[in-house]
Amino acid sequence: MLRPTLRRLLPSWRRPARIVAVAFALAISAGTVLLLLPMATEGGESVDFVSALFTATSAVCVTGLVVVDTPTHWSTFGEVVILGLIQVGGLGIMTIASLLGLLVSRRLGLRLQLTAQAETKALDLGDVRRVVAGVVLVSLAFEAVTSAVLATRLATGYGYDTGRAIYHGVFHAVSAFNNAGFALYPDSLVRFATDAWVCLPIAIAVLAGGLGFPVWVEIWRHRRGRHRWSMHAKITVITTSALLAIGTLVITVAEWNNPETLGRFGVGGKLLAGFFSGVMPRTAGFNSVDVGQLESGTLLVNDVLMFIGGGSAGTAGGIKVTTFALLAFVILAEVRGEPTVHVLGRKLPATAQRQALTVALLSVGAVVAGTLVLLTLTPFRMEAVLFEVISAFGTVGLSTGITADVTTWGHLVLTVLMFLGRVGPITLASALALRERSRRYELPEERPIVG
Amino acid sequence: MLRPTLRRLLPSWRRPARIVAVAFALAISAGTVLLLLPMATEGGESVDFVSALFTATSAVCVTGLVVVDTPTHWSTFGEVVILGLIQVGGLGIMTIASLLGLLVSRRLGLRLQLTAQAETKALDLGDVRRVVAGVVLVSLAFEAVTSAVLATRLATGYGYDTGRAIYHGVFHAVSAFNNAGFALYPDSLVRFATDAWVCLPIAIAVLAGGLGFPVWVEIWRHRRGRHRWSMHAKITVITTSALLAIGTLVITVAEWNNPETLGRFGVGGKLLAGFFSGVMPRTAGFNSVDVGQLESGTLLVNDVLMFIGGGSAGTAGGIKVTTFALLAFVILAEVRGEPTVHVLGRKLPATAQRQALTVALLSVGAVVAGTLVLLTLTPFRMEAVLFEVISAFGTVGLSTGITADVTTWGHLVLTVLMFLGRVGPITLASALALRERSRRYELPEERPIVG
Ligand SMILES: [K+]
Ligand SMILES: [K+]
Repeated sequence: MLRPTLRRLLPSWRRPARIVAVAFALAISAGTVLLLLPMATEGGESVDFVSALFTATSAVCVTGLVVVDTPTHWSTFGEVVILGLIQVGGLGIMTIASLLGLLVSRRLGLRLQLTAQAETKALDLGDVRRVVAGVVLVSLAFEAVTSAVLATRLATGYGYDTGRAIYHGVFHAVSAFNNAGFALYPDSLVRFATDAWVCLPIAIAVLAGGLGFPVWVEIWRHRRGRHRWSMHAKITVITTSALLAIGTLVITVAEWNNPETLGRFGVGGKLLAGFFSGVMPRTAGFNSVDVGQLESGTLLVNDVLMFIGGGSAGTAGGIKVTTFALLAFVILAEVRGEPTVHVLGRKLPATAQRQALTVALLSVGAVVAGTLVLLTLTPFRMEAVLFEVISAFGTVGLSTGITADVTTWGHLVLTVLMFLGRVGPITLASALALRERSRRYELPEERPIVG
Repeated sequence: MLRPTLRRLLPSWRRPARIVAVAFALAISAGTVLLLLPMATEGGESVDFVSALFTATSAVCVTGLVVVDTPTHWSTFGEVVILGLIQVGGLGIMTIASLLGLLVSRRLGLRLQLTAQAETKALDLGDVRRVVAGVVLVSLAFEAVTSAVLATRLATGYGYDTGRAIYHGVFHAVSAFNNAGFALYPDSLVRFATDAWVCLPIAIAVLAGGLGFPVWVEIWRHRRGRHRWSMHAKITVITTSALLAIGTLVITVAEWNNPETLGRFGVGGKLLAGFFSGVMPRTAGFNSVDVGQLESGTLLVNDVLMFIGGGSAGTAGGIKVTTFALLAFVILAEVRGEPTVHVLGRKLPATAQRQALTVALLSVGAVVAGTLVLLTLTPFRMEAVLFEVISAFGTVGLSTGITADVTTWGHLVLTVLMFLGRVGPITLASALALRERSRRYELPEERPIVG
């Protein structure tokens, strides 16, 4: 008898949005089972359940936090499972998020045109095929090129034999493009901190994956001459560039003389590692300097960048750069006393403003709640705990080094945060947008993807 | 030649809103000069300029953070100056904020009625007189009753002579009602932690001052029988009660066995000190347990409560409970898929939503920026620095004990944060509301005060 009341109180999630959560839960379950196999570990002994669940969640949600050292703990089979989970998670989030974005813009588009065919709101098989094909093509192309450069460099510069060079090249290329941050070295990429042939291809793959598939489609469509970019693509590219510049600048300046991080490199090395450290919070999770040795201020800047994250319908996490930018535009309009919010020459619908607000503030709530629980469970400083929680929720994967030591309950909390951070913003934003009731529209409007 | 461009880019603050900033700057200047006098200190030697500026700002903005111990450093003259600044600051913020609230609701009201007398938007002298008289009356009444109870208790329970009992009673009553948090004891009120005759009158005065003058007016007007409360009063009372209950519960439970805080008291003492600690973050700043010894989780809960603060147009700081509640209602409506935001049976104008968003997010920005600067300037942990910054911005006055040691630059940063936190939200919210351009209204609407 409680059901009708409950249904009225709780959000009535629509199926298209819920699909993300279900798909990710299934992939994580399958990954957990595979990683529990004895053959998945180097020693041939089964790992405990929570470690397997944590690792599978971290891989499928392309987070990159680890409770056991990837190369020493997992066998080659285990590493390939992780690689597969990363690829499935990355392709999955790009495909589903792109389809949801298409569905949202099509429904709202239909409503604007006031056509009678409102029944044909759904996506057909052709849409799905085109999106899947596009996502797979872009992913494989980027991963192939990045793999080739990395393998060549590892073979020629570090004396890896061909097989090992290709394996390491592919693993880190896939991990980079999917913003996963898993590495086959206990120190992540610290040993390559001053090697531009390793760091730059990885940084470029990270940025490419983090832009999001819809932006790639536009870049491809408009490759000849001048064209009109969508609000979504413009915001994503501009905000990503701005945050990248700010992050690189702040981190490089703040750490310039820190002997534990940039201080031990020459000027070229400082600039390279500073740039690399500016790219990784959006939200790749590799590190070429020891995150635990960063200045407190640098950690806070990282917190902010990790929370914002990357582009929608890409492999990056966080609340997404569009969500952040929309809120900035709303504040700017309000402070300037403008009755409507204009973004780059277009009017921003009030519903998009409310959706951005909802995604951002519920995310703040999740981070605060996660920090509170983890502070209570562990003896670590707030600085480290907040960083860890934002890293998990933003599916970033950077850590000050406490991940393995936050206790089993802490691992479960981080697992939940990784899952929520991966499927939460996209599910929430699409569910909200798909449920919008008809409203009057006075002006042509345009909708960027929120979340 | 830059002026027209600047004017277009910068917010065009209207006079009524700007008055807060100017009035507070003047009061702080006068207070700084008085506290610089040699006779203001116990030893008869002039204090340094930044300490005087910090103390005057802390008093006028009713914050309560101190860089020097109030009873040992300042002479009785100095203490009376501080008391005067608190009273001026408290009366000032209540008067100005109430008048701005009146102005906002009257202008918007006129627009709704579509009368031809749109020119009579301004407040007349009668309004000002009524508000000033009301604010002074409520303040003095509360302060008198609280003083009497405290003085009686100090004289009978602690053997103070009559003069000293009255002086201490008045000082702490004024400090409490104005949510200032200045105390005449080096340990704030720790020595009275289990004395209900001291703690409860102070807690009640704090809550009363923090409700805000507009709520008191309604309580007075509707004192007989049933009546319709305004949305503003309902939200303020409900949210204040809810946050008070949550804060008390969380702090009491989290600290129950902490030997440095509640652990050393009996059950009655634990409950009293827990309740007191639940009241003080909204935003009084007294403490009856050592804040520096609180659990990390308790500090974070305090951070959240201090950031939210108390009621509008009262003596409390923070972004205000209405701002917080409005955002919660917006999120609730969005998650439930409702096209308009309904609050307690009324429609919430979109402009109020945007104003709440602007106040809250700019405040988050101020706190993050302040934390970043203070982390860079000082060697303290993020936990302590974040707490200090929110305490300053929320005009709370609680501290983990680092206030005196954050260096002179740190003191200037905190001074700016106290000033911004006091005048920022109210100035911003009124300026935004007063500048609203005409919009169509479909339904009867109602506007709570934001900020
Ligand atoms: K990641
Ligand atoms: K205070």
